[in-house]
Amino acid sequence: MKLLIINPNISRGVTDLIEAEARRVSAPDTRIEMATARSGVAYIETRFEALLGAHAVATLAGERLGHYDALLIAAFGDPGLAALKEVLDVPVVGMTEAALMTAAQLGQRIAIIAISRRITAWYRECVDRCGLLGRLAAIRYLDHPLGDPGTVQQDHAARLLALSRLAVERDGADVLILAGAPLAGLARGLKGQLKVPVVDGVSSGVCQAEALFCLRAGAALRGSFAPPPAKPHLGLAPGLRALLDAGGS
Amino acid sequence: MKLLIINPNISRGVTDLIEAEARRVSAPDTRIEMATARSGVAYIETRFEALLGAHAVATLAGERLGHYDALLIAAFGDPGLAALKEVLDVPVVGMTEAALMTAAQLGQRIAIIAISRRITAWYRECVDRCGLLGRLAAIRYLDHPLGDPGTVQQDHAARLLALSRLAVERDGADVLILAGAPLAGLARGLKGQLKVPVVDGVSSGVCQAEALFCLRAGAALRGSFAPPPAKPHLGLAPGLRALLDAGGS
Amino acid sequence: MKLLIINPNISRGVTDLIEAEARRVSAPDTRIEMATARSGVAYIETRFEALLGAHAVATLAGERLGHYDALLIAAFGDPGLAALKEVLDVPVVGMTEAALMTAAQLGQRIAIIAISRRITAWYRECVDRCGLLGRLAAIRYLDHPLGDPGTVQQDHAARLLALSRLAVERDGADVLILAGAPLAGLARGLKGQLKVPVVDGVSSGVCQAEALFCLRAGAALRGSFAPPPAKPHLGLAPGLRALLDAGGS
Amino acid sequence: MKLLIINPNISRGVTDLIEAEARRVSAPDTRIEMATARSGVAYIETRFEALLGAHAVATLAGERLGHYDALLIAAFGDPGLAALKEVLDVPVVGMTEAALMTAAQLGQRIAIIAISRRITAWYRECVDRCGLLGRLAAIRYLDHPLGDPGTVQQDHAARLLALSRLAVERDGADVLILAGAPLAGLARGLKGQLKVPVVDGVSSGVCQAEALFCLRAGAALRGSFAPPPAKPHLGLAPGLRALLDAGGS
Amino acid sequence: MKLLIINPNISRGVTDLIEAEARRVSAPDTRIEMATARSGVAYIETRFEALLGAHAVATLAGERLGHYDALLIAAFGDPGLAALKEVLDVPVVGMTEAALMTAAQLGQRIAIIAISRRITAWYRECVDRCGLLGRLAAIRYLDHPLGDPGTVQQDHAARLLALSRLAVERDGADVLILAGAPLAGLARGLKGQLKVPVVDGVSSGVCQAEALFCLRAGAALRGSFAPPPAKPHLGLAPGLRALLDAGGS
Amino acid sequence: MKLLIINPNISRGVTDLIEAEARRVSAPDTRIEMATARSGVAYIETRFEALLGAHAVATLAGERLGHYDALLIAAFGDPGLAALKEVLDVPVVGMTEAALMTAAQLGQRIAIIAISRRITAWYRECVDRCGLLGRLAAIRYLDHPLGDPGTVQQDHAARLLALSRLAVERDGADVLILAGAPLAGLARGLKGQLKVPVVDGVSSGVCQAEALFCLRAGAALRGSFAPPPAKPHLGLAPGLRALLDAGGS
Repeated sequence: MKLLIINPNISRGVTDLIEAEARRVSAPDTRIEMATARSGVAYIETRFEALLGAHAVATLAGERLGHYDALLIAAFGDPGLAALKEVLDVPVVGMTEAALMTAAQLGQRIAIIAISRRITAWYRECVDRCGLLGRLAAIRYLDHPLGDPGTVQQDHAARLLALSRLAVERDGADVLILAGAPLAGLARGLKGQLKVPVVDGVSSGVCQAEALFCLRAGAALRGSFAPPPAKPHLGLAPGLRALLDAGGS
Repeated sequence: MKLLIINPNISRGVTDLIEAEARRVSAPDTRIEMATARSGVAYIETRFEALLGAHAVATLAGERLGHYDALLIAAFGDPGLAALKEVLDVPVVGMTEAALMTAAQLGQRIAIIAISRRITAWYRECVDRCGLLGRLAAIRYLDHPLGDPGTVQQDHAARLLALSRLAVERDGADVLILAGAPLAGLARGLKGQLKVPVVDGVSSGVCQAEALFCLRAGAALRGSFAPPPAKPHLGLAPGLRALLDAGGS
Repeated sequence: MKLLIINPNISRGVTDLIEAEARRVSAPDTRIEMATARSGVAYIETRFEALLGAHAVATLAGERLGHYDALLIAAFGDPGLAALKEVLDVPVVGMTEAALMTAAQLGQRIAIIAISRRITAWYRECVDRCGLLGRLAAIRYLDHPLGDPGTVQQDHAARLLALSRLAVERDGADVLILAGAPLAGLARGLKGQLKVPVVDGVSSGVCQAEALFCLRAGAALRGSFAPPPAKPHLGLAPGLRALLDAGGS
Repeated sequence: MKLLIINPNISRGVTDLIEAEARRVSAPDTRIEMATARSGVAYIETRFEALLGAHAVATLAGERLGHYDALLIAAFGDPGLAALKEVLDVPVVGMTEAALMTAAQLGQRIAIIAISRRITAWYRECVDRCGLLGRLAAIRYLDHPLGDPGTVQQDHAARLLALSRLAVERDGADVLILAGAPLAGLARGLKGQLKVPVVDGVSSGVCQAEALFCLRAGAALRGSFAPPPAKPHLGLAPGLRALLDAGGS
Repeated sequence: MKLLIINPNISRGVTDLIEAEARRVSAPDTRIEMATARSGVAYIETRFEALLGAHAVATLAGERLGHYDALLIAAFGDPGLAALKEVLDVPVVGMTEAALMTAAQLGQRIAIIAISRRITAWYRECVDRCGLLGRLAAIRYLDHPLGDPGTVQQDHAARLLALSRLAVERDGADVLILAGAPLAGLARGLKGQLKVPVVDGVSSGVCQAEALFCLRAGAALRGSFAPPPAKPHLGLAPGLRALLDAGGS
Repeated sequence: MKLLIINPNISRGVTDLIEAEARRVSAPDTRIEMATARSGVAYIETRFEALLGAHAVATLAGERLGHYDALLIAAFGDPGLAALKEVLDVPVVGMTEAALMTAAQLGQRIAIIAISRRITAWYRECVDRCGLLGRLAAIRYLDHPLGDPGTVQQDHAARLLALSRLAVERDGADVLILAGAPLAGLARGLKGQLKVPVVDGVSSGVCQAEALFCLRAGAALRGSFAPPPAKPHLGLAPGLRALLDAGGS
């Protein structure tokens, strides 16, 4: 399986983090290809930044159309996820969605550890769109400025561990999600020190992509994820046009 | 008040419909300015098309930054609405949100009349994001191909009336929303023939924009609608950059 | 437009506060008329007091039937609101409902600042009836005895400001509602000092009444807000009888 | 135990129906006393009529204060129920609430059979206030004019039976509530002919009142059902004043 | 009425506590018979222990089939409750369900006081299955090791009182449930010291069983609580077989 | 990875169906071992039958403790799933849960096709426990007697296809789950003929088990899925005792 992983942010350092974790967990016959957003921001924390990220992801996904068997959108909040499911006939996986669906099988109540306060509103809305708000125990977050997103894990290790413990002891979480691509791989590191299952966005994204590919559940030709009906369009970049044309036939 | 109304679709005929209805209902001291998306599709029915529309709306809103006191996004589904609330310090109103908040004051259970089956999933998710899914009685829809979006009202008048009646008699709706910019003004036309209050997206959008402007509730400097934190960005069109710069200062 | 504003409490001092704020925000062609409950309590905090207030509001609304184009029930909790929508064919607006529908367009998560602990249960049920419980971030309240409801704002200014800040910083509210007619106008005063949009019950009530009147959405002749079916009645005061007779024809 | 049963409607024929059923089911040491609203309508179907009924119930409950050990409000929709729980220190039971809490122990999904279409919106809101909307399978209703509320059972027996069957076969109900005081006793009559447990409002109201009295769970002196705080009041009938004075001490 | 009360735990000391409280509250014509699980654990706190308890309860209920008019499952969490409702044609009452349905008539928001932290997740899921999660104010719990379940009340009296007060003052509860058979009877003891109604699992279970028996609502022959369809089975103990055979005829 | 798959029913023919499908989809390094319940019924449709199945699954899982790396409970409704997650420190997967979490990544609204009417209530409660009731479009079911569970697919192929189409066209489902072990493999057969993704319980169960094993998220030592606290027990079969002892150390 050829798995395209798109980092919706412009930060290549984070792309490298994602790639390392993805390669570590992927099956032998999974070929991973990485892409980094050409436009957008260094780290998506808000709805507006997600709008920019969604556009960048769609453009890249369209440019490489036909060259991958599954797509992983590698930012928490899953910018563009539902939209791309409509126009692609391969599995499209989001880091949040994959982490939630994985975590939901490991515990009843889920906590998310996030890297900034600002990002939590967006995450909460994301959990709500997945329909799992009723299972959210808490979102806890780093309350200090991040510095370099590429070194969040090292810079804030002790605090991330403390937040994880609070989520279990105070919020009653059965399972944790360490959220945000900059935390890719941290779950492995903390596992020994925590007392509940810990889910990582990147690795659960890769595993869910492999599972969905393996199941070959079929593409949507009807229902709300069928390709958009063909209609006039205007002024779209080639990648976006390719997606509309692919679907609208 | 200067009200900028952006049609997120590329169809100028629909822009004209919207403008006519907006001018009819607006207060004497409201100056209306129209804009039409330069990129996107003729009519947004899906999540992917909404992604395109959101980007087009944001670009236009950024280019005209500083030249309006309130913004109305004039397509049902409100593409880009939450994102733009973050970066603008003037009221940003969406047709769906305004229609729902208006309808919610006129009846307990709300029905939406839509112009295609495909569009209903997107509308439903929109009502859910507003938190009002519990008050949705039904979404009923035209089940025949639309033809020209600019003449939907005339082409399908009898069917739209029949759908409205079914929503009241079968679904128990207390109030109706005629959804989609192409239906702008139809509510006025049908009012005599229906037996419950009927809400139009464009006119409720204009009235809610006037109400919000009048209240001067203040801008968000904290919370999840504060401007995105300043951070590196790349490859953004001038309009989008302007929005990031305006907020991130 | 002739707007009748009824204070469901017997406190004339609060009626004056309401009137001042209403006149300040209303459009030039809105004529405001005030009425104060002839029976009931000084300040509604509980369900039983709301029962008394609802009866008083209905009586007054019936006595003046035909002499107003819209009605604003000017107490938080909206005593009698849904009932009066059935029997009146003009827009009926409640302070809570109007504030919530306004706030819902300014932020995703809403906090309410209340003037006593006891009142919060009633407010919460009110938000629930509006279907917006999922968007309620918190209700925070003054925990000291009020003294004179007419001077709450001055007596407790610093505490109200502190509560508002907690709602933003701790509860994650994007928008605040300062609840209760005795706080009419306070939103204007605090705006400079808070960092999120602040909504006032009276002024949003007036603006929503103007918006609904302007939209002329039509009266309910079917559905659950149609007038009650005609049937025998007994022992009702003239105002109440007028409402039944108006609707039941 | 002395059980006061108040019919919130003015129809003495229905009071007789209620009394007969109540006497049939009550325990040997339960003394039943009946009261009929002195003001209001013949049959409550709407929110406005419920407002009238609530006022009438409160007035009677206040006039007889001290002369009963439990109160049953004998109309579906429970007019005044939550309000009276605040001011009385004896159990206050509503027919809907009692029927729902009884039915919830007999099946997972509950259907209500109602005597008019108009009444269903009010019932639905009542189920919602009880927090059991998620367990409501359906509300089915007689769609023909009632005629005399005192003879609904006989006039519409076949149709009521058919509705009950549809609720089981089509709506997946596990248990039925025959709603409305005019149907008092019908559950007994239909039991042989239906295939799921059937709950009657009056008899479940009596049994729940007996259960609550027997448990002596204590009165509310704190929380949202404590008596309203003492404060100035004006223009209230003696019964209502008695309730305020009883609580506010 | 012959009421069989089964303690799903193996602790005979707790059976005695339950019996004492049950006899104290039951009506003169209720004959109480007790049974204690022959297999399982000393005190059910988890889902796995509940699985064991459910099996033990079912076995006992089947062995005594035909010898009781109602069954009370006397452990919080109601192990086996829904399953036994399918195969028995007499009322089956659970301590949690009965306590919740009782409490829901005494206050709007309910708090549960539990005897260990671990047990709270199971209780919460139980409230959710009853559909009343929206009315749950909080679950507070003893955070120290229990010692002997038969003497929890005496050993932790002060702490249980303190937890109850916090539930009212901090969590906004209107009514309390003292949960777990080991707390049977404590509600009576604390009533004088608390300021809101307090509900006991055992006594509300007995009263609800009496109420359901008295109402004779009929057995389920259709719907999801009808007996399981007859089909091959294997390897079941005589009690379990009796239940299948009773229903599947 | 060694994957133990337990059929909670006594029907060996269905075990064979499950095994065939599991072997077809599993990864090269997954070793599958099958087990069939020694006690219980031929096909679980009800809560009581699920109680029997849960006990049988737990017994088998305990007897083979230490001999598998992951456990798949291969009946829809997931009997014993949450309980076994507490006592096992390897991933425990349920067919329903796995199918739902898979389907939730393929479409927004999910429909379930079931093999009998009776089974639908149990499935619905299962979806509710997963927290995904808000995403359930419908449960459609075969309404004719099954005959042999081992040949349901062949006997009812046309009807199953018709039900699937109705779920898409009428209920607005974006994705289908063919539910029940007897339908194992049918999804592959129908895929060509349906227009939306189709999820099979067995194969998604296997793939999710592989994903969870691969992620090595860690065991629960705290939270509500930690092993039950050690305490006295009595009368348990060796398998069940092994599970308690394993966890309670």
